[in-house]
Amino acid sequence: MPAHSVFPRLLRPASVAVVGASDDPLRIGGRPISYMLQQGYKGRILPVNPTRSVVQGIAASSSVADMPETPDLAIVAVAARLVPETVEQLASRGTKAAIIFSAGFSEMGPEGQRLERDTLACARRHGMRLLGPNSLGAMNPRIGFYGTFTSVVEAGFPQPGRVGIVSQSGAYGCHILGLARRRGMGISTALMSGNESDLGVHDLIQALVDDEDTDVIAVYSEGIRDGQGLVAALEAARRARKPVVMMKVGTSAVGGAAAQSHTASIAGNDRVFDAVVSDLGVVRARSTEHMLDVARLAARRIYPVNNTLGVITVSGGAGVIISDAADAAGLPMPEMPAAAQKRLKELIPFAAPRNPVDCTAQFMNDLSIAGRFTEAVVEEGGYQSVLGFFTYTVDAESIADDLRAQLKAVRDRYPDRVFALSILASDERGRQYEDDGFTVFEDPARAVAAIAAMGQFGEAFARRPGQPAPAVPRVELLAETPNEAESKRLLAEAGIAVAPERACESADAAVAAAEALGFPVVMKILSPDILHKSEIGGVLLGVNDAASVRAGFDTLVQRAGSAVPGARIEGVLVARQLSGGVECILGIQRDPVFGPVAMFGLGGIFVEVMKDVVLRPCPFGEDVAEEMIRAIKGAPLLLGARGRPPMDVKALAAMLSRLSVFAHQAGDRLLSVDLNPVIAMPGEQGAFAADAVIELAPARAAAQIEEVNE
Amino acid sequence: MPAHSVFPRLLRPASVAVVGASDDPLRIGGRPISYMLQQGYKGRILPVNPTRSVVQGIAASSSVADMPETPDLAIVAVAARLVPETVEQLASRGTKAAIIFSAGFSEMGPEGQRLERDTLACARRHGMRLLGPNSLGAMNPRIGFYGTFTSVVEAGFPQPGRVGIVSQSGAYGCHILGLARRRGMGISTALMSGNESDLGVHDLIQALVDDEDTDVIAVYSEGIRDGQGLVAALEAARRARKPVVMMKVGTSAVGGAAAQSHTASIAGNDRVFDAVVSDLGVVRARSTEHMLDVARLAARRIYPVNNTLGVITVSGGAGVIISDAADAAGLPMPEMPAAAQKRLKELIPFAAPRNPVDCTAQFMNDLSIAGRFTEAVVEEGGYQSVLGFFTYTVDAESIADDLRAQLKAVRDRYPDRVFALSILASDERGRQYEDDGFTVFEDPARAVAAIAAMGQFGEAFARRPGQPAPAVPRVELLAETPNEAESKRLLAEAGIAVAPERACESADAAVAAAEALGFPVVMKILSPDILHKSEIGGVLLGVNDAASVRAGFDTLVQRAGSAVPGARIEGVLVARQLSGGVECILGIQRDPVFGPVAMFGLGGIFVEVMKDVVLRPCPFGEDVAEEMIRAIKGAPLLLGARGRPPMDVKALAAMLSRLSVFAHQAGDRLLSVDLNPVIAMPGEQGAFAADAVIELAPARAAAQIEEVNE
Repeated sequence: MPAHSVFPRLLRPASVAVVGASDDPLRIGGRPISYMLQQGYKGRILPVNPTRSVVQGIAASSSVADMPETPDLAIVAVAARLVPETVEQLASRGTKAAIIFSAGFSEMGPEGQRLERDTLACARRHGMRLLGPNSLGAMNPRIGFYGTFTSVVEAGFPQPGRVGIVSQSGAYGCHILGLARRRGMGISTALMSGNESDLGVHDLIQALVDDEDTDVIAVYSEGIRDGQGLVAALEAARRARKPVVMMKVGTSAVGGAAAQSHTASIAGNDRVFDAVVSDLGVVRARSTEHMLDVARLAARRIYPVNNTLGVITVSGGAGVIISDAADAAGLPMPEMPAAAQKRLKELIPFAAPRNPVDCTAQFMNDLSIAGRFTEAVVEEGGYQSVLGFFTYTVDAESIADDLRAQLKAVRDRYPDRVFALSILASDERGRQYEDDGFTVFEDPARAVAAIAAMGQFGEAFARRPGQPAPAVPRVELLAETPNEAESKRLLAEAGIAVAPERACESADAAVAAAEALGFPVVMKILSPDILHKSEIGGVLLGVNDAASVRAGFDTLVQRAGSAVPGARIEGVLVARQLSGGVECILGIQRDPVFGPVAMFGLGGIFVEVMKDVVLRPCPFGEDVAEEMIRAIKGAPLLLGARGRPPMDVKALAAMLSRLSVFAHQAGDRLLSVDLNPVIAMPGEQGAFAADAVIELAPARAAAQIEEVNE
Repeated sequence: MPAHSVFPRLLRPASVAVVGASDDPLRIGGRPISYMLQQGYKGRILPVNPTRSVVQGIAASSSVADMPETPDLAIVAVAARLVPETVEQLASRGTKAAIIFSAGFSEMGPEGQRLERDTLACARRHGMRLLGPNSLGAMNPRIGFYGTFTSVVEAGFPQPGRVGIVSQSGAYGCHILGLARRRGMGISTALMSGNESDLGVHDLIQALVDDEDTDVIAVYSEGIRDGQGLVAALEAARRARKPVVMMKVGTSAVGGAAAQSHTASIAGNDRVFDAVVSDLGVVRARSTEHMLDVARLAARRIYPVNNTLGVITVSGGAGVIISDAADAAGLPMPEMPAAAQKRLKELIPFAAPRNPVDCTAQFMNDLSIAGRFTEAVVEEGGYQSVLGFFTYTVDAESIADDLRAQLKAVRDRYPDRVFALSILASDERGRQYEDDGFTVFEDPARAVAAIAAMGQFGEAFARRPGQPAPAVPRVELLAETPNEAESKRLLAEAGIAVAPERACESADAAVAAAEALGFPVVMKILSPDILHKSEIGGVLLGVNDAASVRAGFDTLVQRAGSAVPGARIEGVLVARQLSGGVECILGIQRDPVFGPVAMFGLGGIFVEVMKDVVLRPCPFGEDVAEEMIRAIKGAPLLLGARGRPPMDVKALAAMLSRLSVFAHQAGDRLLSVDLNPVIAMPGEQGAFAADAVIELAPARAAAQIEEVNE
């Protein structure tokens, strides 16, 4: 059964079998039944227990074969070794979806891995889909479906709502559920992917994209197994205008190591992940709280384009905190119009009416001030998003009701704005403000971060497709890693400009080449056995005359011979030395999860020491390439800074974009490309790769890789 | 009265007059009386009201003169224009301390500024000290003293405890108080400084250093007026082993502007502030929540030296989050000893025993596992700090009491460790764990940040004084900004090495100098009217022979004459060109709040584009200077990276340290010094300033500055 047909059974099954059902509501096989009974699940519960005819008051079957009907969904809560045969029995009864609670599979070593493979193979044979094993399950509070044994619901069941949650970690996913309940955030569905033997995190995201009861998708993830699948699911979410906020842990080297020991997933490079998901409009959560803040505000379904923030505050201090936070989030806070500022100054002479608009404690003497100032910010300021800081005053006895009425009146008139309040309210008062259409935060800075995310969603949803990636001739890779000249020829075929140069087999040829190209020249040893030439002294710079070229030829051949005895020497490359330009690095790295990723940075120490680079998955057009170039911190060096001339960024962008297409088309055997340096010349003089290293997997190995993947 | 004598009156007055007392408990002059009555303040309340003989049930005086006794402290809640005479009356009665609630002073423009000056002058005449005006007051929940009109206490009065709060913003300070109450954090004292006409934020910090009921100091600040005072108070806190966690807002340009419009304070440069306070062991809070987290954990009074973190978790996902957070905070998480890992693996085969130690959901079947694993982490791991992630399991019906008993037993045996729990507990259960000696957090990453702060405090408290700043001859500044040669002479007197060079008045002299110094040389125009020589083409590099020196002399004089007509030309500087070194920048900038601050960075684009610099207040010793040099991102260029030779960092550190002493000794007239470039030579060949610009305030202006300050 294709994944999308199984999703409805997983999210809202009409009947649920529990194999390994327990009469004890605290046991793993007892909890889901107990929870569904408590929460009034309307579907049919089918307990399977070999020794009991009644489980928690419900008639039970003694075996899967004896069940009175084929369930929409089965929960498997039996010992690991019994799981394959249970799945076989369920499949024989025509069951198409199962959640495997049982642990003791691939997380347990080779024996468990075999058990997991057997289980999956059995399900595959029958077209049955699995969540798990080692999954904490699935739940849908809207219909009282609790296919889970988590104890987090003992403190209270989730409120029904429109945020869907996907988590790779069961315990942490339920931790998030507990936090969501405390913050009053309603849940449409929560899905814990467990070992992901079959359905992966990308399938579960797709399930929520398809689910009409889900407006917002919150994802907790430790490692991505299927990069293509994830990209497709996130792109589907973007097209469906469903915001995705994603927490991906394992950002540090040490965290990454912990992630690998705990799941079996490939963590991938964190910066690559960042580049991939931000390209898809995903907001990456910096923390659990950030994720919940963003999801809660996103559930209002207002996603501005060209987001701006207007602030009404009763404290100048909070105004400063908010301004700092908006600056950090890149959220503009334009000034109020001059006329409005003047009018507000007339209302309260010592108000600060610019933005943040500070109405000062004065509003407590005349509540209409709060309403009039807020209305001015919303209407005259014309901001897409508004944040009000009223802190504890919302519960002050003498003004609480009146203040709420004032704010509600403004909210009602402008339902199209993102509108958050930073208040310290009693639970009841907080709920009232939420019902009035405000999203309530304690901390003003956290409110700002969530508001900024709404604009990111808005931009992603509104984005027109970029320039198409340029058509680049498909290049035939060689059987082995090519030498520099071959690499450059391959790249030149793909339309990537290389520095004018000639491969020379003799000193005479080298002199002739240098005279044709013009002095000074660069000379480099040519050998398929020497990849990093400068490390063995195989590069000569600024060679100024014929005699030096002749001497240089001999020096290079000699050095190569003594540094790498037996190296095949194919001659010397002579190239015109480019000067007046800026050295850059363009590179490709094959990411094990996301495939070829392009890198751009400035040359030398900028990359080595400052790590000032930008990444992007391949392929992409010239507009995206130019965005990348402008995004590095050192960009002023290319764009012209402090009296320096601007370099040919257009040519650089064209090269980067073509390189991305070349890498995309080259297939799995391309491991990496290093164009280092690329010289970006001033004005419109172009950009030239002065060196190129292409690394290929041997043709044979690639075939093996394909076999394993099958 | 000196500030320190007035502190006890402010923190625990035996009697409080309220001038402008109101019978209405919701009015500004009524709230403090109402609050103190509600909270059982044991001291005497002395209401002053011209028309009522009884206020809120207490006998009132009709005037300050009529009061039955001289109060320890007076609260002034009358209209602004009446404040000077009220202060006069209070002072005549011998009152030594007053809190001015009234607004309408310097925050209101010139008229208000005059009123504030008059009020202060009157207090000064009588040796009386003021908090405010425009202050939301002071409170001490331990004795029921509420000299405040904030409405935040309507939702509940603060719990008494041992964290003192100082805030420059009244409303935001009370927002923090409200948050503290929600999180169960006890307060010793809260002080809101208002306009700071007299007592400033540094005085209030000092008051909490002196206060024996305060263990931890939390400060919210918008701008610092008295840099020296702040440094002294923070240094006193460090010596008293009282941790200070400080939130200083206005970090962004826009936030800084908002701060200035709202208080009258000088915001100062945020990076300078960072450099100053981190030097003093202050933990700078990134957010309100970070401040409360740190203060709450610090109240346990455990401040480890060489802090390490051991983690016990029931979720691998949480383990990854914690590892990421520890990495970001620079908090080491060493592995568990091999023997302990082996033993834990025997207990649970699929546990992850390294650190984080993941006991998996298995512990729910055998609670002794939780205790044994936790004990192993604490005892065998030997970590200074321990974090347990037990999330919602602490409230799971079947295990809650037993789990708590297991954890408490470990805690009781190891009371010397920082011990935090990340749990989702009911309020009651959370309080029980707090009473057991754990500090409880919802979010594991926030727990890690707070734990890391404990180590920062520990290091600061344990720090031995660094190397003394070197003795540097005191140098006589000139009457005017000196030219390059004079600048270098001044610096050379202070022991700062400059590149070998000679000032030459004629082309002949220049040739002789070049021949004496050795070719190639650098030539620079010498003129007091031309500060930035390279911008007018006033620098020639790589001059290689006598003829070129002669021609260069004429070129420079000509260029200077045409670029700056009328400029005084004093000749040309000839210096040996240093090669093979790394260009650095050493600088001094006088900060308006904290005085001279030294800057170190690599030359050229590293400073201009990458902003890769480090700052430190002057003066400091060579050890600190070397720390600074090693702290920049580009440090590998100096220390030897990728086959590059290391440069003479010792000589560079000596120069930086001497420069800091020179700047410290030079006094207020020194506005800035730019040594750009300084060439750090390879090996032990030294470091030389190749250019120097010293900027001085004219002698007259400095005198004026001093007058204004008086």
